[in-house]
Amino acid sequence: MLQGYQSWKFDSRPAIAGTAAVVGPEEGRGPLGNDFDIVHGDLSLEEKTWEKAEKKLMEEAAKLAIENAGVTKEKINFYVGGDLMNQIISNSFAARTMAIPYIGIFGACSTSMEGLAVASMMVNARHADYALAGTCSHNCTAEKQFRYPIEYGSQKPPTAQYTVTGAGAAVVTLRGGGPKAPVVTKATIGRVIDMGIKDPFNMGAAMAPAAVDTIAAHFRDFGIEPGHYDMIVTGDLSNVGYHIALELMAKHRIPIEQTTYGDCGLMIYDRDKQPVQSGGSGCGCSASVVYGHLLKKVRTGEIRRLLAVATGALLSPLSFQQGESIPCIAHAVAIEYGGD
Amino acid sequence: MLQGYQSWKFDSRPAIAGTAAVVGPEEGRGPLGNDFDIVHGDLSLEEKTWEKAEKKLMEEAAKLAIENAGVTKEKINFYVGGDLMNQIISNSFAARTMAIPYIGIFGACSTSMEGLAVASMMVNARHADYALAGTCSHNCTAEKQFRYPIEYGSQKPPTAQYTVTGAGAAVVTLRGGGPKAPVVTKATIGRVIDMGIKDPFNMGAAMAPAAVDTIAAHFRDFGIEPGHYDMIVTGDLSNVGYHIALELMAKHRIPIEQTTYGDCGLMIYDRDKQPVQSGGSGCGCSASVVYGHLLKKVRTGEIRRLLAVATGALLSPLSFQQGESIPCIAHAVAIEYGGD
Repeated sequence: MLQGYQSWKFDSRPAIAGTAAVVGPEEGRGPLGNDFDIVHGDLSLEEKTWEKAEKKLMEEAAKLAIENAGVTKEKINFYVGGDLMNQIISNSFAARTMAIPYIGIFGACSTSMEGLAVASMMVNARHADYALAGTCSHNCTAEKQFRYPIEYGSQKPPTAQYTVTGAGAAVVTLRGGGPKAPVVTKATIGRVIDMGIKDPFNMGAAMAPAAVDTIAAHFRDFGIEPGHYDMIVTGDLSNVGYHIALELMAKHRIPIEQTTYGDCGLMIYDRDKQPVQSGGSGCGCSASVVYGHLLKKVRTGEIRRLLAVATGALLSPLSFQQGESIPCIAHAVAIEYGGD
Repeated sequence: MLQGYQSWKFDSRPAIAGTAAVVGPEEGRGPLGNDFDIVHGDLSLEEKTWEKAEKKLMEEAAKLAIENAGVTKEKINFYVGGDLMNQIISNSFAARTMAIPYIGIFGACSTSMEGLAVASMMVNARHADYALAGTCSHNCTAEKQFRYPIEYGSQKPPTAQYTVTGAGAAVVTLRGGGPKAPVVTKATIGRVIDMGIKDPFNMGAAMAPAAVDTIAAHFRDFGIEPGHYDMIVTGDLSNVGYHIALELMAKHRIPIEQTTYGDCGLMIYDRDKQPVQSGGSGCGCSASVVYGHLLKKVRTGEIRRLLAVATGALLSPLSFQQGESIPCIAHAVAIEYGGD
């Protein structure tokens, strides 16, 4: 059901029956390395191009999520997927391999929760028995497309973020996952927010206002406060954006101190030991942290109520070249322990 | 409700309360010129770049569709939009202007019906009071991004298609549009189909198998035949693809002769008099033909049951350069006369 102006309440309690997260070497070396289903030791995944490697990450995560849900791909009615590549080719080509009816989406790095929200809505409304949501990113494809090929060895400012090499996927259904499977209970779809920032090496600062706008809308639409959740995570604001988000929440009197507030871009790497500047970013950042790491804690009940707020910067290299500022968005999904 | 494997049946009868189609000069000169809400005499729309012109087309169509629906933009819960531009910037920037919660989608030229299907599902399932679906394309942005800037004056083979300069938008709701407003009754989400065609100057041939796959799935899921509809239109197969689709339907024993079968890419231009090679293409093609021209006939009851099957080629310039063939998709939406 529509709740408030821009949110959904999922009364049918759609369950996340299976997830998977597949990452690259840098992510495997990070603090969450043990939580990922597959860690690749080589960025190329033995493919001839970075783009083919990214597609393979997505295919592996999708295949494994379906297996972990205990079903076959023929049971999946719809695949909701997208990524950062021009024309979302990683997901479109993965959808070709899987031959599952496909709803292509794009929300930059917010694609992870956009996909989970849409998949959960379809299942909640009985417009799908099984829906698969997935997204991915690859450090070398994103750097090449949005900035410079990594082979150039160009330098970066400390506000820059490091695109995660990773893919995450989740199977949503009313028909499985066991009695304690995590349940998707709420979602809030974000508006596009643009505070005039034009620096593509400072995405965190650009995205923080969008994250706070969606978080505020979520609390307003449901009449709740941050304390409703055990944990709130933003997608990939990383160090710069995380602190701006904290300031903005204080300014807007959102009592974030009631809960544990984290950011996927800060969680996936050890910034003291890894060369990631402000932290992680990319569609694969929130997808792999939520599906690989956080849902493990929701499955055991260590986290009973999680709000995942994935953030995205909706610029293109062309819009930047034409002097446009960076429009940003964030989508929030609430995931709860299924044993309650 | 889910119907069969990959289709939706909309029991709540979501209505299309308002639509708008805004096009450029070549489309205005075509056979449907009088049906469009706004015809621009100049391709630039008095903007400094082609991309800004494309965004303006989208903003105008969205604004007008909302006005035609008799509501204000504050009533619209969700905007479901996408386009051909890298990172779908035309729609993301239009969503910034409108400040409506935004679900970015991408299905290449199938985006028109992907958006209408998702918007109708949300409204049908009462996850939105009002949802806006929109998409656009511009001849000069698409040619520049996918092939060559038109200023180069490069030659084209007769199988090439001419990207429509146009935008279309529709407001879907359970709360308005009058007793005879067109009703969205069914949708079928397509699988990605790739028959190995690699020539980006022959999109129609690449997309035809996807159109036929979705049409076949639609009839299978609902247990109906082409005669159920007064008219079936494909998105933008144009002359080459249209005839391949006819052959494929004959091969698969789909009795398409029971109904009137047309193609938006053939309808929007007069190929004898306009320099469009095989016909029209682009997200704006099916959007402007369906929302501008065909829905007028559904509103009067001249067409009582329409099946619109928008087709999309999910390639990118990079996937082409890397030797990949063209994955294609088609999404079908059934729209019926509301007075029955």
